[in-house]
Amino acid sequence: MEDKYNDLKTRLIEVNDLNAAAALLYWDQSTHMPPGGAAARARQMATLERLAHEKFTDPAIGRLLDELEPHAESLPYESDEASLVRITRRFYDRETCVPAEFTARLASHSAECYQVWAAARPANDFARVRPYLEKTLDLSRELADFFPGYDHMADPLIDYRDYGMKAEAISAIFADLRAELVPIVQAITAQPPADDACLHKSYPEADQIAFGLDIARRFGYDFERGRQDKTPHPYTIKFSLGDVRITTRVKERDLKEALFSTLHEAGHALYEQGIKMDYEGTLLARGTSSGVHESQSRLWENIVGRSRGFWEHFYPKLQAAFPGQLNGVSLDTFYRAINRVEKSLIRTDADEVTYNLHVMLRFDFELALLEGRLAVADLPDAWRARFEEDFGLTPPDDSDGVLQDMHWFAGMIGGQFQGYTLGNILSAQYYDAALQAHPSIPDEIERGEFGTLHGWLKDTIYRHGRKFTAAELTERITGGPLRIEPYIRYLRTKYGALYDL
Amino acid sequence: MEDKYNDLKTRLIEVNDLNAAAALLYWDQSTHMPPGGAAARARQMATLERLAHEKFTDPAIGRLLDELEPHAESLPYESDEASLVRITRRFYDRETCVPAEFTARLASHSAECYQVWAAARPANDFARVRPYLEKTLDLSRELADFFPGYDHMADPLIDYRDYGMKAEAISAIFADLRAELVPIVQAITAQPPADDACLHKSYPEADQIAFGLDIARRFGYDFERGRQDKTPHPYTIKFSLGDVRITTRVKERDLKEALFSTLHEAGHALYEQGIKMDYEGTLLARGTSSGVHESQSRLWENIVGRSRGFWEHFYPKLQAAFPGQLNGVSLDTFYRAINRVEKSLIRTDADEVTYNLHVMLRFDFELALLEGRLAVADLPDAWRARFEEDFGLTPPDDSDGVLQDMHWFAGMIGGQFQGYTLGNILSAQYYDAALQAHPSIPDEIERGEFGTLHGWLKDTIYRHGRKFTAAELTERITGGPLRIEPYIRYLRTKYGALYDL
Repeated sequence: MEDKYNDLKTRLIEVNDLNAAAALLYWDQSTHMPPGGAAARARQMATLERLAHEKFTDPAIGRLLDELEPHAESLPYESDEASLVRITRRFYDRETCVPAEFTARLASHSAECYQVWAAARPANDFARVRPYLEKTLDLSRELADFFPGYDHMADPLIDYRDYGMKAEAISAIFADLRAELVPIVQAITAQPPADDACLHKSYPEADQIAFGLDIARRFGYDFERGRQDKTPHPYTIKFSLGDVRITTRVKERDLKEALFSTLHEAGHALYEQGIKMDYEGTLLARGTSSGVHESQSRLWENIVGRSRGFWEHFYPKLQAAFPGQLNGVSLDTFYRAINRVEKSLIRTDADEVTYNLHVMLRFDFELALLEGRLAVADLPDAWRARFEEDFGLTPPDDSDGVLQDMHWFAGMIGGQFQGYTLGNILSAQYYDAALQAHPSIPDEIERGEFGTLHGWLKDTIYRHGRKFTAAELTERITGGPLRIEPYIRYLRTKYGALYDL
Repeated sequence: MEDKYNDLKTRLIEVNDLNAAAALLYWDQSTHMPPGGAAARARQMATLERLAHEKFTDPAIGRLLDELEPHAESLPYESDEASLVRITRRFYDRETCVPAEFTARLASHSAECYQVWAAARPANDFARVRPYLEKTLDLSRELADFFPGYDHMADPLIDYRDYGMKAEAISAIFADLRAELVPIVQAITAQPPADDACLHKSYPEADQIAFGLDIARRFGYDFERGRQDKTPHPYTIKFSLGDVRITTRVKERDLKEALFSTLHEAGHALYEQGIKMDYEGTLLARGTSSGVHESQSRLWENIVGRSRGFWEHFYPKLQAAFPGQLNGVSLDTFYRAINRVEKSLIRTDADEVTYNLHVMLRFDFELALLEGRLAVADLPDAWRARFEEDFGLTPPDDSDGVLQDMHWFAGMIGGQFQGYTLGNILSAQYYDAALQAHPSIPDEIERGEFGTLHGWLKDTIYRHGRKFTAAELTERITGGPLRIEPYIRYLRTKYGALYDL
């Protein structure tokens, strides 16, 4: 049995190495590659991904799983062996359910659709990309149908990023959350917006980067096993448990941009760096879901990095780094500036409070499109109507409306967005649990110390990788399921104080 | 037949993509990877190289070659199709001749031997690495014996880097060259060495890099399809014909280091960038041999980049870039400094004249070791004796003697060094041919223009990739075989003037 287990691990590591190399091809493409490399690079990534898929769907892996499962079931559920077999089975079944022919067709369509979208968005030309998006919708339905027996057609698509979550449950959670959020947003935006002029002075790039990296290091991001580079869109990427990198982008006249993107990506990276080293090269060696991953990026970025206590410690350091820009600016003004709430068009620029409304709009439309309640052709009008309803604001065009996010135009419709809001909800729930275990955490944050919080997160979440599902993790940590109350309480407390609600 | 040809190309491109990804893993390891990535990275590179080997030695490729060869033989020798089949056959036979078991054994031993050497060199401890080197010699003989029918046991090993060259022919060429070089070296080193203090002032790194890159650009290195990074040992690496990168290293107090390593690597990169784009992803898309490759790096570095005419144009620019360091230094002093000849211990630091003596010593020892005329245990003494004979200088220890180069300690004994000197010889022979075709080239160089030379090299050498062997190329370009006379004439003329010989 040990031979079979090792055989499985060897095969998984081979697949992992192909995927890691494909990831490096992607990282290099977005950081250092000269433009002339683009054509061959796309081909090289496709080759490696195809080979990884072929190796992973090898029937020999299915046979090994068949042979290992009876033994694994005799082991404790939480044991590494049982977990590796269980998680590998989940991914093996998922990948073998989808014919290679379909995967190739979807990849080819996605690449084409992305190209058309990349030209259509700046041209504000939804009509041009519409037929491609219709085909994406057809393919998304076709993909879902490879997983018969679902409650909602979105469920198998959601499984790709947030395994085990169901459209119906998410819809119910989101409806509750929306009912709470809309009045908060309305109450805040009825007041004049906070003055954030202090964030829009000239901040030299190198100093911005140095300041962000220093905080990431204090959070616990290990630069012996990571680094930061610049890319047009920030992201976190892992080549092994010893090499988890982040990227950022810098705007000279927006101090928020690099700073909070670094804290956000550092949160993702802390999760991946915290996974048990024994899992290296296997399917256990990754964060368990989009929602849990986002809970960590948002916890470090927002709950910690946008808190008053945090800046009690760091604002004097920030002033020292940028004396000309900040010496006349009070902590209070700065704190209000980085937490300014406003009705805005673009999801990725949105503040903590309005952000979820952007996400829920997209999630609801995904369900409506899949169900056939909404036609692709009607999407721009539906977008405008819903935006007016939620924000009291009409997008002036489709570029900054339905065309703003690449997700639908580079992959699937369904399961793309829920993780962002699930992550916000979980971030507050997990942070509450951390405070219950360690009431000293807020005081430590005010001293610029994060070891207790980081240690607790590593112990309860990070080290497990994919061993537990999001629901299992949440149950272990909080004793119950995902709940919106801690998040609502967090927002009410914080923004109630900021806006005298 | 076209289907089979396309099938072959598709398979070659898949192998190429795996090798390109492995190359990127290597490049990243030496440029940007955090230390924590090292263990997984070594495994990832090994996985990709193994998969590339498996894919390339697939019997299906052998069958395709069997089917395509009769057709290819009906086509002109120079046609792309016939050439692709011919070159693929050569590599296919070579890779399938060697059992995978042996390749794995050699790779594992090489890795171990390299580790031991890396510790033994600084400790000046030849005895520690001796048993490993003895095993390397055994494995090198074993490897040669997979290619029966050789004239000299070194021939199959030489084939890996300089296909078609024979030990006997190289020995004869090197003996002639050595007979010419030793008296030149003795005559020069009897005189006081040139004053090169001007090169050893403080030169800021960024300015050094900028100056070198500007020259590389003027040579014709296309930065849309390349870039330069810093590594401990400079090299050129290709991920596709659209992405050929170079690296350099900088010493603040040695102006030669970054400058000439950039020109050297740019020469390699011009070759790879100049290959016909149609060959992308196939075995044709690479320089044809170590010797021809080195002829290009040395032509651009030395024949062009260390010439008087070149610096007539660039020295005023160099003075403008480093006024504090160079304003009192005449062109003549600078030119003598960069062409200073001296007896030195280290091959990679050696000047143009003495460099080949370092190489020939190693080549001769490789033959003696393979033939059994020299035992590994006697290598340090033999090294000292030969060094005294050629240089009139005794290495003070083994660190800067037999242990200085990694080649034997990280791979094979045999075929490792001849390319460096073959390249020097060919650089002069090819440059002579370029001048015959375009007598205006020296005047253009004095104006800082390189288009005619670059264009001629691209047309006669670069674009062909591996289509022609080194011998075929030399025959096409010069109408005959490799000859040392142009190189000897080049050295006599240049150094005769410098040292009043």
